[in-house]
Amino acid sequence: MKWKSVDEKYILKIEKGEFVHQTLVQFCKDQNIKNASIAGIGAVEYVKCGYYDLANKTYLFKECHDIVEVASYQGNIMIKEDDLFVHAHGTFSDADNQVFGGHVDEMTVGVVMEIILTPLSSTIERTYDETTGLYLMDI
Amino acid sequence: MKWKSVDEKYILKIEKGEFVHQTLVQFCKDQNIKNASIAGIGAVEYVKCGYYDLANKTYLFKECHDIVEVASYQGNIMIKEDDLFVHAHGTFSDADNQVFGGHVDEMTVGVVMEIILTPLSSTIERTYDETTGLYLMDI
Amino acid sequence: MKWKSVDEKYILKIEKGEFVHQTLVQFCKDQNIKNASIAGIGAVEYVKCGYYDLANKTYLFKECHDIVEVASYQGNIMIKEDDLFVHAHGTFSDADNQVFGGHVDEMTVGVVMEIILTPLSSTIERTYDETTGLYLMDI
Repeated sequence: MKWKSVDEKYILKIEKGEFVHQTLVQFCKDQNIKNASIAGIGAVEYVKCGYYDLANKTYLFKECHDIVEVASYQGNIMIKEDDLFVHAHGTFSDADNQVFGGHVDEMTVGVVMEIILTPLSSTIERTYDETTGLYLMDI
Repeated sequence: MKWKSVDEKYILKIEKGEFVHQTLVQFCKDQNIKNASIAGIGAVEYVKCGYYDLANKTYLFKECHDIVEVASYQGNIMIKEDDLFVHAHGTFSDADNQVFGGHVDEMTVGVVMEIILTPLSSTIERTYDETTGLYLMDI
Repeated sequence: MKWKSVDEKYILKIEKGEFVHQTLVQFCKDQNIKNASIAGIGAVEYVKCGYYDLANKTYLFKECHDIVEVASYQGNIMIKEDDLFVHAHGTFSDADNQVFGGHVDEMTVGVVMEIILTPLSSTIERTYDETTGLYLMDI
């Protein structure tokens, strides 16, 4: 992963084979960033994304092992159980421009991933919410 | 709705059952914000979104009453007829990661909606445009 | 194209019939902007978008000549071979809220396109990368 700091933002170039969320978390730890917003485009060779089944309080994930364009990708990074957690959603398109998407668990870069990360000076933490079964922002 | 001000932005946590656009408009009124950009992710239990039929100068809306992930959501808030108006587009994904989307009229939070709202110090107003039949930014 | 400068950002209103990427590049040249991030919504009457076939190092593009909503659109503008280049991905929805998307080569505004352009003070250049066959950010 390569990065450049500019105007209180970071431009990230995550490279082929790198895990995007793992890389983002490590980067934030290295820079002592506790909260951030992210947005980016690129192409991935693996993505695990899905849908939250609220009734059963569990994620239904599907995995895609083909190279797909990241048509959209946005989210945030916050504190969760003394670690950092990337909450991001994405849409992905194939060679026919067909799109799938959802909550992104993790993805691996297929060509390159270009992300703008905006650090936030807040220290918002995600705490477990009984009602939804999710870690929600504690604000 | 819970919110936190950070670095001249607002992090919004819109909660289950709340109307997103109605909540955004009320928040901006409370904070005396006239223009803003918005981006967010989450899940909704209702969304009315659609397509502008330019030839007939009317929106073709469809309603979805299932819980769907908000795969992407972005737009702006501006002045319209002495009120505020949210212009936002979104994509939504289901349990099979299938995606639909369009111009978002309104949506109701199904689990949570996390939005970053960036206030803009401008006072851009939308005024009616005869040619398109839409309220366009008067700049 | 109309624009307004606010809070170190630019709000752009690209109008019917205008090429979006060509307009963005010209705007940046006029304002002496070398790097920027962009995000926007609107409707286009033409879009050429597609998928990068890494094995054959070539883009597979499809063209759409119908008016479609721009459900999401985000990317960046950087230097490439002494010129500026828009790297952007988008998702597009039709009258049935069906979505397609991918890497956007160019698109023509169908109704209006509202973009927030955030200039970056960096001067990142895209240089040719043998491995991928693409011009990647040289950082």
